[in-house]
Amino acid sequence: MPGNTKYVYDFEEGSADMKYVLGGKGANLAEMTRLGLPVPPGFTITTGACNEYYQTGEFPDGLLDEVEAHRIKLEQKMGKKIGDPDDPLLVSVRSGAAFSMPGMMDTVLNLGMNDDAVQGLAKQTGDERFAYDSYRRFIQMFGKVVLRVEGGLFEEAINKLKEKKSVKLDTDLKAGDLKELVKEFKDIVRVHAGREFPTDPHEQLKLAVEAVFKSWGNKRAVDYRRLYKIPDNLGTAVNIQTMVFGNKGNDSATGVAFTRDPATGEKVPYGDYLINAQGEDVVAGIRVTEPLLNLKEKMPKLAEELFANMDTLERHYRDMCDIEFTIEQSKLWMLQTRVGKRTAAAALRIAADMVEEDLVTKDEAVQRIDPDQLDQLLHPQFDPKAKVDVLTKGLNASPGAAVGKVVFDADIAEELGKNGDKVILTRWETTPDDLHGMVAAQGILTSHGGKTSHAAVVARGMGKPCVCGADAIKIDAKNRIFSVDGTQVKEGDIISIDGTTGRVVLGEVQLVPPKPSKEFDLILGWADEIRTLGVRTNADTPEDAEKARQFGAEGIGLARTEHMFLGDRLPIVQQMILAKSEEERQDALAKLLKVQRDDFIGIFKAMDGLPVTIRLLDPPLHEFLPSPIDLRVELTKLEASGTPEHELTERRELLEKVERMAEQNPMLGLRGCRLGITYPEIYKMQVRAIMEAACQLKKDGGDPKVEIMIPLVAHVNELNTLRQESEAVIGEVMSGCGVAVDYSIGTMIEVPRAAVTADEVATVADFFSFGTNDLTQMTFGFSRDDIEAKFLPRYLERKILPKNPFETIDDGVAEVVRMGCEKGRKTKPDIKLGVCGEHGGDPESVKMFHEIGLTYVSCSPYRVPLARLAAAQAVLGEAVVTTA
Amino acid sequence: MPGNTKYVYDFEEGSADMKYVLGGKGANLAEMTRLGLPVPPGFTITTGACNEYYQTGEFPDGLLDEVEAHRIKLEQKMGKKIGDPDDPLLVSVRSGAAFSMPGMMDTVLNLGMNDDAVQGLAKQTGDERFAYDSYRRFIQMFGKVVLRVEGGLFEEAINKLKEKKSVKLDTDLKAGDLKELVKEFKDIVRVHAGREFPTDPHEQLKLAVEAVFKSWGNKRAVDYRRLYKIPDNLGTAVNIQTMVFGNKGNDSATGVAFTRDPATGEKVPYGDYLINAQGEDVVAGIRVTEPLLNLKEKMPKLAEELFANMDTLERHYRDMCDIEFTIEQSKLWMLQTRVGKRTAAAALRIAADMVEEDLVTKDEAVQRIDPDQLDQLLHPQFDPKAKVDVLTKGLNASPGAAVGKVVFDADIAEELGKNGDKVILTRWETTPDDLHGMVAAQGILTSHGGKTSHAAVVARGMGKPCVCGADAIKIDAKNRIFSVDGTQVKEGDIISIDGTTGRVVLGEVQLVPPKPSKEFDLILGWADEIRTLGVRTNADTPEDAEKARQFGAEGIGLARTEHMFLGDRLPIVQQMILAKSEEERQDALAKLLKVQRDDFIGIFKAMDGLPVTIRLLDPPLHEFLPSPIDLRVELTKLEASGTPEHELTERRELLEKVERMAEQNPMLGLRGCRLGITYPEIYKMQVRAIMEAACQLKKDGGDPKVEIMIPLVAHVNELNTLRQESEAVIGEVMSGCGVAVDYSIGTMIEVPRAAVTADEVATVADFFSFGTNDLTQMTFGFSRDDIEAKFLPRYLERKILPKNPFETIDDGVAEVVRMGCEKGRKTKPDIKLGVCGEHGGDPESVKMFHEIGLTYVSCSPYRVPLARLAAAQAVLGEAVVTTA
Repeated sequence: MPGNTKYVYDFEEGSADMKYVLGGKGANLAEMTRLGLPVPPGFTITTGACNEYYQTGEFPDGLLDEVEAHRIKLEQKMGKKIGDPDDPLLVSVRSGAAFSMPGMMDTVLNLGMNDDAVQGLAKQTGDERFAYDSYRRFIQMFGKVVLRVEGGLFEEAINKLKEKKSVKLDTDLKAGDLKELVKEFKDIVRVHAGREFPTDPHEQLKLAVEAVFKSWGNKRAVDYRRLYKIPDNLGTAVNIQTMVFGNKGNDSATGVAFTRDPATGEKVPYGDYLINAQGEDVVAGIRVTEPLLNLKEKMPKLAEELFANMDTLERHYRDMCDIEFTIEQSKLWMLQTRVGKRTAAAALRIAADMVEEDLVTKDEAVQRIDPDQLDQLLHPQFDPKAKVDVLTKGLNASPGAAVGKVVFDADIAEELGKNGDKVILTRWETTPDDLHGMVAAQGILTSHGGKTSHAAVVARGMGKPCVCGADAIKIDAKNRIFSVDGTQVKEGDIISIDGTTGRVVLGEVQLVPPKPSKEFDLILGWADEIRTLGVRTNADTPEDAEKARQFGAEGIGLARTEHMFLGDRLPIVQQMILAKSEEERQDALAKLLKVQRDDFIGIFKAMDGLPVTIRLLDPPLHEFLPSPIDLRVELTKLEASGTPEHELTERRELLEKVERMAEQNPMLGLRGCRLGITYPEIYKMQVRAIMEAACQLKKDGGDPKVEIMIPLVAHVNELNTLRQESEAVIGEVMSGCGVAVDYSIGTMIEVPRAAVTADEVATVADFFSFGTNDLTQMTFGFSRDDIEAKFLPRYLERKILPKNPFETIDDGVAEVVRMGCEKGRKTKPDIKLGVCGEHGGDPESVKMFHEIGLTYVSCSPYRVPLARLAAAQAVLGEAVVTTA
Repeated sequence: MPGNTKYVYDFEEGSADMKYVLGGKGANLAEMTRLGLPVPPGFTITTGACNEYYQTGEFPDGLLDEVEAHRIKLEQKMGKKIGDPDDPLLVSVRSGAAFSMPGMMDTVLNLGMNDDAVQGLAKQTGDERFAYDSYRRFIQMFGKVVLRVEGGLFEEAINKLKEKKSVKLDTDLKAGDLKELVKEFKDIVRVHAGREFPTDPHEQLKLAVEAVFKSWGNKRAVDYRRLYKIPDNLGTAVNIQTMVFGNKGNDSATGVAFTRDPATGEKVPYGDYLINAQGEDVVAGIRVTEPLLNLKEKMPKLAEELFANMDTLERHYRDMCDIEFTIEQSKLWMLQTRVGKRTAAAALRIAADMVEEDLVTKDEAVQRIDPDQLDQLLHPQFDPKAKVDVLTKGLNASPGAAVGKVVFDADIAEELGKNGDKVILTRWETTPDDLHGMVAAQGILTSHGGKTSHAAVVARGMGKPCVCGADAIKIDAKNRIFSVDGTQVKEGDIISIDGTTGRVVLGEVQLVPPKPSKEFDLILGWADEIRTLGVRTNADTPEDAEKARQFGAEGIGLARTEHMFLGDRLPIVQQMILAKSEEERQDALAKLLKVQRDDFIGIFKAMDGLPVTIRLLDPPLHEFLPSPIDLRVELTKLEASGTPEHELTERRELLEKVERMAEQNPMLGLRGCRLGITYPEIYKMQVRAIMEAACQLKKDGGDPKVEIMIPLVAHVNELNTLRQESEAVIGEVMSGCGVAVDYSIGTMIEVPRAAVTADEVATVADFFSFGTNDLTQMTFGFSRDDIEAKFLPRYLERKILPKNPFETIDDGVAEVVRMGCEKGRKTKPDIKLGVCGEHGGDPESVKMFHEIGLTYVSCSPYRVPLARLAAAQAVLGEAVVTTA
């Protein structure tokens, strides 16, 4: 119904809450206009128009008429006409979606320029050179963005001209040179776009709007949306705005500003600007910018006005704002604002400060922190004790340290990343086309660009360490090498970068975990007051347990005992498995009993007074043995080399044993409680070790809280049998020691059947812990080891799965968890229900677990703060994440 | 509450419907008594008493008092006293559970015998030899059964005595010899039981009752219950009955009779008897028996009375009865009756005849056939065209033919059977201790015993071929060899047996499927009228499809296309997988298209007019390649033998490819629809082949009904994507051919997630087929290949699982199926819902699927009749299986 739909809004008609209609940029331009700030007038085409365009492949009926009407109104307001040979109106045409997608879509500046308008501009400004420079910039941008002409062709023409004129800088080109360039650019368009350059401003506008619509569907925009989970059907708005020029001489400037420091959160205006430049020059990092505070000296009055406007915006938005401004011949224009991206440290400090300043409530402060971003605070740093030989220093663009192989290409970074290699993506400067490589990299290093350059902004958003503008680095991308003062670094060489200080180091630097700030503790303390979901940790060692406790873990949700079977214990474990006699097996078990008891003493001590869930042995025993393929190859070699028969016999026996234990699908084989039933002595030894440790601590005045967890239960009878066997041992140990220890016995729910029959399983379980890793594997029929390399990437790319189900809990798997909880509670209303898969540390999953009504989640120590925050946000309702 | 519980019933007090209280034998003795048949008086101790004994380990309070009271009543009725030196009462003490467990539990005869009673018996019978023979038999049986003395010791003593007396047969021993034997037997008891032989009849009775109770828990009884799924908590009753003697001279006899022929079902009295013998002699197959009909000549009046009684019983029970009788000095006694076991052929004929005779209704006839037993009718037979060189002939004890390795020992049979070897258990005669070996064997061959011997009865029950009494066979078990007229057959040699004709053949005879009888078609026709569940077949070839159609299949529920990728197609498939260029791959696909199209033409023809569900390729591609371990070993050998480098390169490349495709858990890896999405060209080729075949047939006047099934769907998006891709191909083919063909596209539900989200999946599925094999694997987290060898036996033994979930659908898995059906129907009320796992051919599972409300089950061709019957029985309510 085109007649009923309004496709175009003047800035005066919109407001900040219309971002789904006008896009973020359009809505904020409207809001600034309503606030009375100096915004160059203009209007916005709605996202709805874009969506209709995607459905039909054509502009919706009536759109062009509406645009025409608003253009005329704009001309009237400005007293200028587009294409006017005396005083032409020039406009910018910019994309603007509901969620910021910086640099992902297309922009056209100086639209309206043609052979007439350039005369008018020259007349109006009395600056012919400026007029022709604007004209050639327009043809170049329009040619590249709208007509899809290869951008390098224009650059080449400029370089040739400069050579011919024997000048070095673009600015050295005279008006006459630029006239020549305009002609040449038009020729380039004719040849490479297969059409004349459109001189009719109305056609220019129509083509530019269509180009912006199309850019919503370009590859880098689609990639970006996948990364940030932005739906594809939102569409982009298009903003048509009067051009103002920051490059009209030394009384002009352009810049980017933040109301507070986006790296530290400090309450001080922050940003970069350039005198006599277009906005693109600042953002693209092509020229070295000046710090915003210098503006106070250079243009004191304008600086005062700008800072006042920034203050207005921050108070209005009640959040740190990111602003673009232009000064055109001493007149300040506000070109754009939005809530600014920031580092995790800044996010915490800003939120805490704003509570202090009574700008926001504690609940809002908690809601404003993106849990995923917290992770960057917990990123490792260079070990302060490490001897660091600094190769060079760049800007500390995104905090945290990283170590990896130097890679010069996003595709290679992605390739190596998939293979599990750690890489540092090293570029002159990144562009939106590098996004997939940045995702795959541990850290980003650039030789160019400031703290608001593409690399810096994106890396901060991703929480990845970034050092940028390290200009001592000379990159030779062709030969896959960079050099710093004669030191050469090849692709594949290991380097370390420290995004907190800007240091770049050749070789691997030892990393250490960071210390969180006081705001970190403050805001997480508020989160703890809000949340109802418990947060425990997965920890197998006293060290991990202590660390997690420092991060706020309220106990251990999963202590995996198999990790205690490795290292120097492995030979004992192999002796147990391969024992030829009962004595030999008992001997091995006795040794294991002793070491496991010591393991448990350490863990109970670290978690004294808090519950500790210990999972009995889970993996198949053959995981502790050499691989049959290696043994067979070795044997074949020995046979071929004529080794005497008697020496081969032992090898053959070992091989035979190992092959007998091998399984087609070990994931679904003899493991978990099936081991406990098949080899009862192993679980009995483990239960004994746990209880002897607990009894000893209890005697020493400690307060161990033991939860014994039986893994991989599919049928209530398995748990029942093992519970009885365990309780017999527990009774023996406690009466032997003469003390009673709090204990409970429960199970992991990780086999679908256990969830389906949870009402039965609950009859003999004191608690359930959903092992969502295995539960996802079995509910999907996915072997994680196999699918992540083989077809999951394709599934995500084709959107067959919306997300990696091993990172964020899948709806179907969540349904199985919900069923298990409901059935479990039906039998035993107060049964403890936890989650100990990796999903316990994923914010979106934590929210789901809160909704399902679990008792607690358990995650790795470093994810504990994140889970605390996410659990609080789940209570507060849908988290409004300011950085999105 | 012993005061309120009645533990003992006189035969006059009970009835046939009390079998859970009195056991089958006791209930039927009571029923015969009420019918006025000549039953030796006695009383029954209830199964409840046995169960209390198992709970406490002691006789329940009051039991012995009740026994005492009933004993006194019995003595009064008989006018004899137990242990009376003038006219002693002797009794038998026999077990009798609710379900017949022939030979599984203990029996004691002649109880009451002691040094006084033997005098009385001698006086009363005027036959001292008989009295002492009875005495020594009693000591021998009591010693063995109650006092657990090794039976061989008594046999040895008899043999020594016979040697000493230079006689050959037991019957040649004189009264004096037997007196000596009695003394010696008492000595054996004293030495080996560590106590005096108990002479007090009351103590004898108490000990015998306890021994019967205990025999409920012996290994062979427990094994039997596991095999026939009889609960362990039913307990056994104990029948104490006045002894009558079939060995009191030539006017005495004992026998076993069936009211109709249990092998063929013919309406004629059938059985065996022995003149002057104890009942044990007939059943144990120790002496060669006479056919029952001979009794007409030998004892005409008694035969007439017996046949009249048999007729009474059959009309009363409205079923074929199995009877034990004894003639003591020309007086007929009915010792036992029960509904008789029969072959499947007999079951069908008896049921059909009884409908004809108006004894039972058609519904009852259908209910009376055990679906599992039908299987034996469909067992293969010797190929009539095969040249068969008969080694020897025995009795045709259980129909069907079998081929396997000769094995002389039940343990070895079980061992080899587990490894997948086919074996023929070959014994002099089987005993209940051989049960596990019979379960494992393909067929049973004995050199001794009649058609009612242990081997024959049990084999018929199991539906296994059995040839018994092949007395030309001389077994030398020690040397693991048998010989027939000089031909020696070693353990491990292959033989073939034909239980329908009794033939035994050295070597392998080709087997062919049998032709079912007219009663088979009749009763299955009745079943078809009753059932509401459809029955289809799993068939991959035109031959299987035709066979299944003959057996009544109403279409194909599962045609696996991977079988079409093997044999001479394998090289093409390997070419497709390993193709180094796109051309090479397309070339392979084109070849496969052609052969697959021909495959489908054959199948559609065989099922013309009926629906054919074709599953697209399911297994992982690496299943079609050589094993990486073999390749690696081969390569290691080649390397060690100094093969030139250039010859190794190709091998190395192949190995690398194969290793790259290998998976940790192929069950959960790149297979099913995941292949379809990863390699779209394979599914497109298959869909094209299917539709080209269907279009061609349609053009030729056929009526193909195509159902394309996409396997292993976990997420609706998988099915949606592949449906769209398939429909594009279908549209192309149909418009290319210019005909339209009925088709539908659906999915297998075999991944738990698909069941949990079946409401979503149903939006793009025309049908679901539950693949309960994989669904069981994933719901349990069981890899069938691994667990059946590794821990399932232990799970069944310890009753952690009540049944093998791959044979009978597990409750938890059934719940997942139910959920899938409910959710699927919520979205699409008329969605077709089938099952195509092996459970589709398991009667108990079929009943479950009927209850869940599926549209059809699909099973292997030979299971189709069984599924038809089971589906009808599901409608009729709980099937009363007469053979249990």
